[in-house]
Amino acid sequence: MSEHIRIGIAGYGNLGRGVEAAIDKNPDMTLVGVFTRRDPAQVTTLGADTVVRTMTELPSFTDEIDVLILCGGSKDDLPVQGPELAALFTTVDSFDTHARVPEYFAAMDAPATAAGTTAMISVGWDPGLFSINRLYSEALLPDGDTYTFWGRGLSQGHSDAVRRVPGVAGAAQYTLPSDTAIDAVRSGSRPVLATNQKHTRECFVVLEDGADAAAVEQAIVTMPHYFDEYDTTVHFISAEELARDHSAMPHGGFVIRSGNTSTEASQTIEYRLALDSNPEFTASVLVTYARAAHRLNQQGRTGAVTVLDVAPALLSPKTPAALRAELL
Amino acid sequence: MSEHIRIGIAGYGNLGRGVEAAIDKNPDMTLVGVFTRRDPAQVTTLGADTVVRTMTELPSFTDEIDVLILCGGSKDDLPVQGPELAALFTTVDSFDTHARVPEYFAAMDAPATAAGTTAMISVGWDPGLFSINRLYSEALLPDGDTYTFWGRGLSQGHSDAVRRVPGVAGAAQYTLPSDTAIDAVRSGSRPVLATNQKHTRECFVVLEDGADAAAVEQAIVTMPHYFDEYDTTVHFISAEELARDHSAMPHGGFVIRSGNTSTEASQTIEYRLALDSNPEFTASVLVTYARAAHRLNQQGRTGAVTVLDVAPALLSPKTPAALRAELL
Repeated sequence: MSEHIRIGIAGYGNLGRGVEAAIDKNPDMTLVGVFTRRDPAQVTTLGADTVVRTMTELPSFTDEIDVLILCGGSKDDLPVQGPELAALFTTVDSFDTHARVPEYFAAMDAPATAAGTTAMISVGWDPGLFSINRLYSEALLPDGDTYTFWGRGLSQGHSDAVRRVPGVAGAAQYTLPSDTAIDAVRSGSRPVLATNQKHTRECFVVLEDGADAAAVEQAIVTMPHYFDEYDTTVHFISAEELARDHSAMPHGGFVIRSGNTSTEASQTIEYRLALDSNPEFTASVLVTYARAAHRLNQQGRTGAVTVLDVAPALLSPKTPAALRAELL
Repeated sequence: MSEHIRIGIAGYGNLGRGVEAAIDKNPDMTLVGVFTRRDPAQVTTLGADTVVRTMTELPSFTDEIDVLILCGGSKDDLPVQGPELAALFTTVDSFDTHARVPEYFAAMDAPATAAGTTAMISVGWDPGLFSINRLYSEALLPDGDTYTFWGRGLSQGHSDAVRRVPGVAGAAQYTLPSDTAIDAVRSGSRPVLATNQKHTRECFVVLEDGADAAAVEQAIVTMPHYFDEYDTTVHFISAEELARDHSAMPHGGFVIRSGNTSTEASQTIEYRLALDSNPEFTASVLVTYARAAHRLNQQGRTGAVTVLDVAPALLSPKTPAALRAELL
């Protein structure tokens, strides 16, 4: 296809850097620039040629940018920036506060509809790819149960909680899916499982000088809400080991649905992600859906949309005829 | 949603029976009837109330049926029936001769476009759900490799080949994905693997009286094209065991793509089906896509389409707002 998509990045943290890298893997896209609230002179980009500008310059780029990828946070940035920018650009964002998706959808739909832009919200892997797989498998097996497992993945919130324990100098916390629970789900027995039965927790902790390891471990495994209801393992490591082995941001998980098409026949659909870098993968998802957002906007589909509204073919740079010949 | 979808079934073998069962699991659908080339009086249906008619009566049911599900075979039935019926009805079929999909698409597109019907072709799990997952994962990880594994599954063609070996009274052949190959792919090392490195074969054989087991085993494992390039295991069992343990039609497999978002970060996307009954699951996929075919036709999207053209939300009986609230 001869289409070429011009992308802008609004916000330049881990996710914005991932988007910059992902655009490089997609020859049908060009990066117009990174737009930041910081002083552009202080921002070092991955690409030597990447243009950095202030966020306030964005309104003068409406003719330059086909899709603006919003890389701000869901808590403070997107609820404010999102509706403002959707009034100017076709946007893609990774709004991920599950409970507030309907409210955010409405807040994006109004300005996008009025402006004739397309606002693709909540793009990523959960919400996002996992949501798509919940939908497919639920529709395919109406008589069934869906299970989501997260991990093995670094949890920022739980790592922070461990760091607040007296005597802890540094920490990383991983959430792991329970093999026992996964096997039970895969068996087709459709077990009832609470979140703490589906997951275990593993902590890597650097102690402060003179801290009591047993007391720290006890404080962690009994911590209400975070650890007390989970099977938790604590490993004590050196500051060097923490820096060397635990600075990546792996994540992933499973969506599994098992259901019955008859009393005799149980069927299982499983979708799994194993990610070395959570922000880089999320960025790749955003960039892929930027292609779809651009196409939907060109087709006249304006207002807020989600990944559930996107036909798979809209995601690929290949023509429909090539996709049929190669993938069907 | 208040929509109600009236379904007809054309052809009543294993797949047609599966469709009849699947309609029962979807309260927004009604089965108008089964249409067969056989004498309707000789056909026993799963449901006591299912109406059976001859295929020749179909043209008088255009006002009664919203979507006709074509349950004939890809080799002889669909190439002839498909275009004829697409001129009368919105259709869904499971045409699965991968190499001839473009040709069949064109043959269905012309009559469907002329008649204002929608012909959804090649619906099932491969082609079908596996195709969708190849597309998603290829678009998400442009710098990567996709691997398809089939099994554990009963292969009709290979079972037939074993039955033709002198001394064999009965047989079932299963294709199994190789655990070694799956582990290599999951590791992110992106290995180059031929089909015979990805799969092993397992045969369950009933010998004729007085047959030489060693000679039969040798004839099987050295059979050109079918077994000689595979790691093949042969088990000799009794006729009773064959009937008791090997009359089901399990199947499934994996689509795995691993790719790099940067030199350091490898990402793996995996989709897996484990099916107790291949025809019942394929039937469930057909029925789910009948809902989408009906909606696409109502939206004015006529002509031939494939699963790659169907937005996930079109598959679900739930409203878009409910899907956003529950699944995102």
